[in-house]
Amino acid sequence: MVVQERVSPTPALVQRLRDRLRQAVGAANVRDDAGALVTYATDSTPLARGQPDLVVFPATTDEVASVLRLADEARMPVIPRGSGTNLSGGTVPTRGGIVLVLTRMNRLLEISEGDLVAVCEPGVRTIELAEAAAARGLLFPPDPGSHTTATLGGNVAECSGGLRALKYGVTRDYVLGVQAVLATGEVIRSGGRLVKDVAGYDLRRLLCGSEGTLAVMTELTLRLVPAPESSGTGMAYFADLADAARAVSRVLASGVLPVTLEFLDQVCIGSVEDYARIGLNTDAGALLIFGQDGDAHAIERDMRRMAEACAAEGATDIRIAGSDAEAAELLEARRAVLPSLSRLEPLTILEDATVPRSRIAEMVQHIQAVARRHGLKIGTFGHAGDGNLHPTVVLDPADQHAVNSAHEAFDEIFAKAIELNGSITGEHGVGIVKLPHLERQLGADHVALLRRIKAAFDPHGILNPDKLGS
Amino acid sequence: MVVQERVSPTPALVQRLRDRLRQAVGAANVRDDAGALVTYATDSTPLARGQPDLVVFPATTDEVASVLRLADEARMPVIPRGSGTNLSGGTVPTRGGIVLVLTRMNRLLEISEGDLVAVCEPGVRTIELAEAAAARGLLFPPDPGSHTTATLGGNVAECSGGLRALKYGVTRDYVLGVQAVLATGEVIRSGGRLVKDVAGYDLRRLLCGSEGTLAVMTELTLRLVPAPESSGTGMAYFADLADAARAVSRVLASGVLPVTLEFLDQVCIGSVEDYARIGLNTDAGALLIFGQDGDAHAIERDMRRMAEACAAEGATDIRIAGSDAEAAELLEARRAVLPSLSRLEPLTILEDATVPRSRIAEMVQHIQAVARRHGLKIGTFGHAGDGNLHPTVVLDPADQHAVNSAHEAFDEIFAKAIELNGSITGEHGVGIVKLPHLERQLGADHVALLRRIKAAFDPHGILNPDKLGS
Repeated sequence: MVVQERVSPTPALVQRLRDRLRQAVGAANVRDDAGALVTYATDSTPLARGQPDLVVFPATTDEVASVLRLADEARMPVIPRGSGTNLSGGTVPTRGGIVLVLTRMNRLLEISEGDLVAVCEPGVRTIELAEAAAARGLLFPPDPGSHTTATLGGNVAECSGGLRALKYGVTRDYVLGVQAVLATGEVIRSGGRLVKDVAGYDLRRLLCGSEGTLAVMTELTLRLVPAPESSGTGMAYFADLADAARAVSRVLASGVLPVTLEFLDQVCIGSVEDYARIGLNTDAGALLIFGQDGDAHAIERDMRRMAEACAAEGATDIRIAGSDAEAAELLEARRAVLPSLSRLEPLTILEDATVPRSRIAEMVQHIQAVARRHGLKIGTFGHAGDGNLHPTVVLDPADQHAVNSAHEAFDEIFAKAIELNGSITGEHGVGIVKLPHLERQLGADHVALLRRIKAAFDPHGILNPDKLGS
Repeated sequence: MVVQERVSPTPALVQRLRDRLRQAVGAANVRDDAGALVTYATDSTPLARGQPDLVVFPATTDEVASVLRLADEARMPVIPRGSGTNLSGGTVPTRGGIVLVLTRMNRLLEISEGDLVAVCEPGVRTIELAEAAAARGLLFPPDPGSHTTATLGGNVAECSGGLRALKYGVTRDYVLGVQAVLATGEVIRSGGRLVKDVAGYDLRRLLCGSEGTLAVMTELTLRLVPAPESSGTGMAYFADLADAARAVSRVLASGVLPVTLEFLDQVCIGSVEDYARIGLNTDAGALLIFGQDGDAHAIERDMRRMAEACAAEGATDIRIAGSDAEAAELLEARRAVLPSLSRLEPLTILEDATVPRSRIAEMVQHIQAVARRHGLKIGTFGHAGDGNLHPTVVLDPADQHAVNSAHEAFDEIFAKAIELNGSITGEHGVGIVKLPHLERQLGADHVALLRRIKAAFDPHGILNPDKLGS
């Protein structure tokens, strides 16, 4: 939501660099035509736009190293990116420079059933890996909402989450090894195929979630797990959100670690029903969707326990899908939330404030109060199991008052998340959108340390300026 | 195995600092008597010894911050430690200075069933947390061999592993949040109670495994999982190690992710049987011990699949424990390895070279050939599921030729681990023992980066000098 003032490299510098880059990666892979410059001026973040000088498409680690060495010498910003599904402005070229697009590096190099790993380049899309793994009876668990479009390089750079995090963890939990190019052109490797490896500082975990500000990852070694045999899905309505929140705690206290535990507030239920007409009860205050995977026996037991936990906390109606088709129908209620909200107004802003799951009810009540106070339409849904909420405001961007109100509302929502020992961002990243809020969560000493770490990797600050570490 | 030359702070400096430290943490908690100086000159690493000037026992984060500020001003080394079960010399005070013993900070502050987390100080012993979690129906999975003595602060600083890593991961996978004091006295927090939190660089993961060289952790928030209902254990003998290694791959390819998958080579089988007389077949070339936890149904299915995989790879004898007592008997074969080897000679050196599990047979054959060539007794056992091997040499330290041969043998073993895309250390840490081998694994550019990161945290290099980042 921030458009930074552009401090542009001079045209002469850009032209000189362009010629040298063309020698390094081939003329066709260094673009400065209007089409490329417009396409790569934005990612998927509402209202965030920059203006690149050059767009470069390298094919190998050596080419990435050449580009970075040239850019570092010229003190030219480099913004690495994949498909640009980012929602925090993390890949917006706020100061011009080179957008380094890694989608040509899209080889899935290996899937090893013996070592339970995949090795791939950063431009492989998440769904490609998931499908290739599934064909071998394996699972790559991270499943961000953008998984059909997003690349694995982007997922690792942002430490993407998704629906399965409570049971399976997030992207960081699957990064065993990385090859990366530093801003000054050196190629390093951290980790590899091993679950156990403590030789050196854990740079693969530091790079995971570093949002392209520390290094450019050019090869990933990712952990896979055996695929579950089957899965089950159910839903439960509650008169109000506090009941649903207590049901979440009761489910977890019952010894079940569910693969799915999602919720919709009343705004979202109504919006989905208006849009999809799937027969939801729009009088309910909250809807929980719960699921388990594993073998049939474990699923049956856990689904029963979850249904019992919901009943004990006053669920007004509980359904367990009896078939795959019925499960798909229940999950449709969750899938349809964002499209249904998005059609209400021209602009949708989806955030990812996160709180300990014991504080979900308090947080959602706060969000609803903030929405009322500002006269905004905010629906909240998300991952109840891990406390990762998606308060989503819809508005008309031509209505400047509404835009300002949305900024104020998110300020208040982020402040509340911090107050409840939560986070301003659970899975979307800090980017440019949340950078102004970061110090409030981490404190000045911590942010100063992040800047020193950034300088240790990138002495001239060329990698993704105006983001983390700036 | 390295005793570094001591560059001692001057006696006058030490005395002045001692008086100021006594004001900060209380006179009784700053010791320089012979008893303390001898006790804290070593950890559990064979042949590694330093000489501290002062031993300080802080009780609070503020006291830790005061100690670090004073030490940083005086440019005095600070070596943080807990129980000192370290096997890589990571807590040996090679340059004198202050040994900062965190065992007084031993409060288990909270176990939350709703949020599935524990909050504790670093001096809590691993087994205390495991037992407190178990009493609430929860599991803290990391179980390093030293878990009855080791502290959680030490486990996190070393990123300890253990027997359950293949299924449950290692310590890093359970660190949700840390509070830490920087060398210059600032207190920072990274992460908290959330599975999803991407606000800032992932410092909790960077600190995990940083071996006390970047900061002193004073509070830990650790993830817990629901405890499994039950567990099963079995064993299989093989004529040679290659068969056992293929069985490991077949087990994993069968879709089972076992909680236990341990192996013993022939030297270890013979040593255990000599010592414990539990009726092992000492003619076998290798012994696999396998186990699963979960519900009774899943255990039964997975134990059957693992037994079938062993049979398919030519296991000569397979047993599944029919009772807890029988399971304990099978596990005794694994537990007795180290004590049985240790009694053969006065000195036991246990290493933790790690390889991708598909390379285990090749690695163990290499270790056996190295042992023969050097005329050394080396038994190898360890975690077949994650490729974390424990080649263990026993010798008489008075025999200087044997000591030199052991150094050469481990040089060759570490080189082979690197060649096989493995690691010189899977779970014990780099410490002083493996620091000379680190650049061979990581390369000069990577090691230079580690030094810059170290400087970003600890500008005067006071924290645990001569270790990682030096």
